[in-house]
Amino acid sequence: MNARNAFYAQSGGATAVINATACGLIETAREYPGQIAKVFAGHNGIVGALTESLIDTSQESAAAIAGLFNTPASAFGSCRYKLKSLEENRAEYERLIAVFKAHDIGYFFYNGGNDSQDTTLKIAQMSEAMGYPLICIGLPKTIDNDLAFTDNCPGFGSVAKYVAVSIREASLDVACMAATSTKIFILEVMGRHSGWIAAASGLAAERSGDAPQIILFPEVPFEVGRFVGKVEDTIAQWGFCSIVVSEGLRTREGNFLTNADLNDPFGHTQLGGVAPVIAHLIKREMGHKCHWAVADYLQRSARHIASKTDVDQAYALGKAAIELALAGKHGVMLTIERLQDDPYRWQIGEVPLAKVANGERKMPLDFIDAEGFHITEKCRRYLLPLIQGESYPPYENGLPVYTRLDKSHVPKKLNSTGQ
Amino acid sequence: MNARNAFYAQSGGATAVINATACGLIETAREYPGQIAKVFAGHNGIVGALTESLIDTSQESAAAIAGLFNTPASAFGSCRYKLKSLEENRAEYERLIAVFKAHDIGYFFYNGGNDSQDTTLKIAQMSEAMGYPLICIGLPKTIDNDLAFTDNCPGFGSVAKYVAVSIREASLDVACMAATSTKIFILEVMGRHSGWIAAASGLAAERSGDAPQIILFPEVPFEVGRFVGKVEDTIAQWGFCSIVVSEGLRTREGNFLTNADLNDPFGHTQLGGVAPVIAHLIKREMGHKCHWAVADYLQRSARHIASKTDVDQAYALGKAAIELALAGKHGVMLTIERLQDDPYRWQIGEVPLAKVANGERKMPLDFIDAEGFHITEKCRRYLLPLIQGESYPPYENGLPVYTRLDKSHVPKKLNSTGQ
Repeated sequence: MNARNAFYAQSGGATAVINATACGLIETAREYPGQIAKVFAGHNGIVGALTESLIDTSQESAAAIAGLFNTPASAFGSCRYKLKSLEENRAEYERLIAVFKAHDIGYFFYNGGNDSQDTTLKIAQMSEAMGYPLICIGLPKTIDNDLAFTDNCPGFGSVAKYVAVSIREASLDVACMAATSTKIFILEVMGRHSGWIAAASGLAAERSGDAPQIILFPEVPFEVGRFVGKVEDTIAQWGFCSIVVSEGLRTREGNFLTNADLNDPFGHTQLGGVAPVIAHLIKREMGHKCHWAVADYLQRSARHIASKTDVDQAYALGKAAIELALAGKHGVMLTIERLQDDPYRWQIGEVPLAKVANGERKMPLDFIDAEGFHITEKCRRYLLPLIQGESYPPYENGLPVYTRLDKSHVPKKLNSTGQ
Repeated sequence: MNARNAFYAQSGGATAVINATACGLIETAREYPGQIAKVFAGHNGIVGALTESLIDTSQESAAAIAGLFNTPASAFGSCRYKLKSLEENRAEYERLIAVFKAHDIGYFFYNGGNDSQDTTLKIAQMSEAMGYPLICIGLPKTIDNDLAFTDNCPGFGSVAKYVAVSIREASLDVACMAATSTKIFILEVMGRHSGWIAAASGLAAERSGDAPQIILFPEVPFEVGRFVGKVEDTIAQWGFCSIVVSEGLRTREGNFLTNADLNDPFGHTQLGGVAPVIAHLIKREMGHKCHWAVADYLQRSARHIASKTDVDQAYALGKAAIELALAGKHGVMLTIERLQDDPYRWQIGEVPLAKVANGERKMPLDFIDAEGFHITEKCRRYLLPLIQGESYPPYENGLPVYTRLDKSHVPKKLNSTGQ
């Protein structure tokens, strides 16, 4: 068989380590020129395939590709674009196969979350139905840690580390000022549907009284009275109170705390952000001034404090994708399998795409303690291995050096509408 | 002369490196047991002296003191407490001298911003007036970089580095998503009165089009029309727009953008935070969805990404304070003197407290470019040396190890009201 080209694309929200997966995949592909001619990356994810906008990674230097290991976000551009079902938009899938055919793509690698695994599955089915030979492998990635069948998702470990480090640092700050100034600090973290990221902040609390003393999970309905009582108790006992709140925090009725409805009783409408809502509530109910931070993109792009475990797993997945594809694997998503907690041992596994697509993994409820404001030991055992090790990027002029790709495009062979 | 004790206290807002100054001071004092018996630290700053709440640092192990080098915030506790003038509250100064006398304090070191230098000056004057021999030296510290007579302030360089690193990372994130999703990211940074911290974010922009493309300084009155035009131009040219806004941003009339007055035309009252106000304005005027982050305490406590230059200067100041005190220096604040920009060279200097007290240093207006949305080359030359080098703390279990002091208190000798 002649060497065929490979297509790789990045999908959905960025992470600090998705480019490490790209790095592992491209570097490994370069070791097999007899089987894989070139790796073409979709410019802005699957949209790049639909528009025949392909980046020729063979034009990038070895140093530029190696630099992907250290570079956050999606170097080839990402997208939020969910392909419709085969029934709804068959033409879109036919277009994809046409582009792949035109560029002799024999391997399809899609790096993303739940939606991306679903897309990969549909493309595998379509290529089969159309008799076009295409090896399809899904690669996991999401800071939300909500993909089923993998023990953890690349990207999550680094957010977890960022959040735990940040709350430890900021809590030292509020603690040292508490005697005569601000006593309460609130950090808002991502996690619309699940408390994985908020839970990770709990790792910073190693001894009784350590910050954060309160974690507000989306899984635990927010009750003003119970919360206020907990804050008061914490200040009385420890002199200050450090709070981590998930953006997905809801009332018992299921409304996000950032919703206008809930804010009405406070006399204000909030422009987004649950941290200021909590701060305002504390001021109103207890008279305490609060400091608050919203980490937003900072948390998921913080390559400067990435987890070495996370970076290593991300790279290993990219490498394994090539090796497994060449071994004939097809129609699977690669996974991280945990072999042991302590010392942590893991390996790459796989699961059929048909099983994983659109599956969602919730945080187990026994990861939250009985009171509902902190994590359990079981949760700590699960999370702790994921933040181990530091993997610092190189610095120049005091700033991290993040790779800049040429993004040389493959000449188009099709017209814009079809074949 | 018998060895006398030294008093050291930390004042005002925490920084990532103020404990490095404490470390330099205590480690150096331990080298001169013949002249300095013990270093007593004020528990919660000068309040610790007023309440005779003194921490005996001689009870801390060498390892614990060495750990201060890597630990953010104020390990002995800080305070927001400004002593009144001698005329207004003479009793307070008399109380201080009484406490110092009771504990044979011969050296007074106060580590803080403008107010602290003023306090140090008054205590020097009072001790002289009361015939109590006390060597008084002020040590600079403030993330605001607004102390006069010193080229820069310890604490600022690390915030500068944090902000520049963070905006570089988060901007890669928004850039890679911009084709099909969010195109604008806003980071709010500290700086109520001056744009020093906002300016530092500009270091991340090394080439044309690099993020941040827009910096909103407190020094430049905010005008909606000009701002909206700049955002539109930036998106048209670069596909995304990354904005850093100082919390001190004001209208032409001098109102903070976070004020209710200004928010009324938006139809909302904001609960604090200028970033969401800007995000809302962009949504209203242009229809673009934005992501925004508020760094708050995260920026000033981020020891994990501290500037090595900053940490080294902070330590050197503490060391010099002891050496100069033993050489008979008195009534001065130590400073950082810049000898050369590139390669950067600096030394410790000094300035009479009478000159520095309550002086404020503004950011030069020629540090902001003509358009008012970015920094000049002159600004870059000034800032760049201050973020050089990384000084990583040790890690254990995936998290930075920050020193925990015993804080053994010196037995009280006075009653609570006076002598």
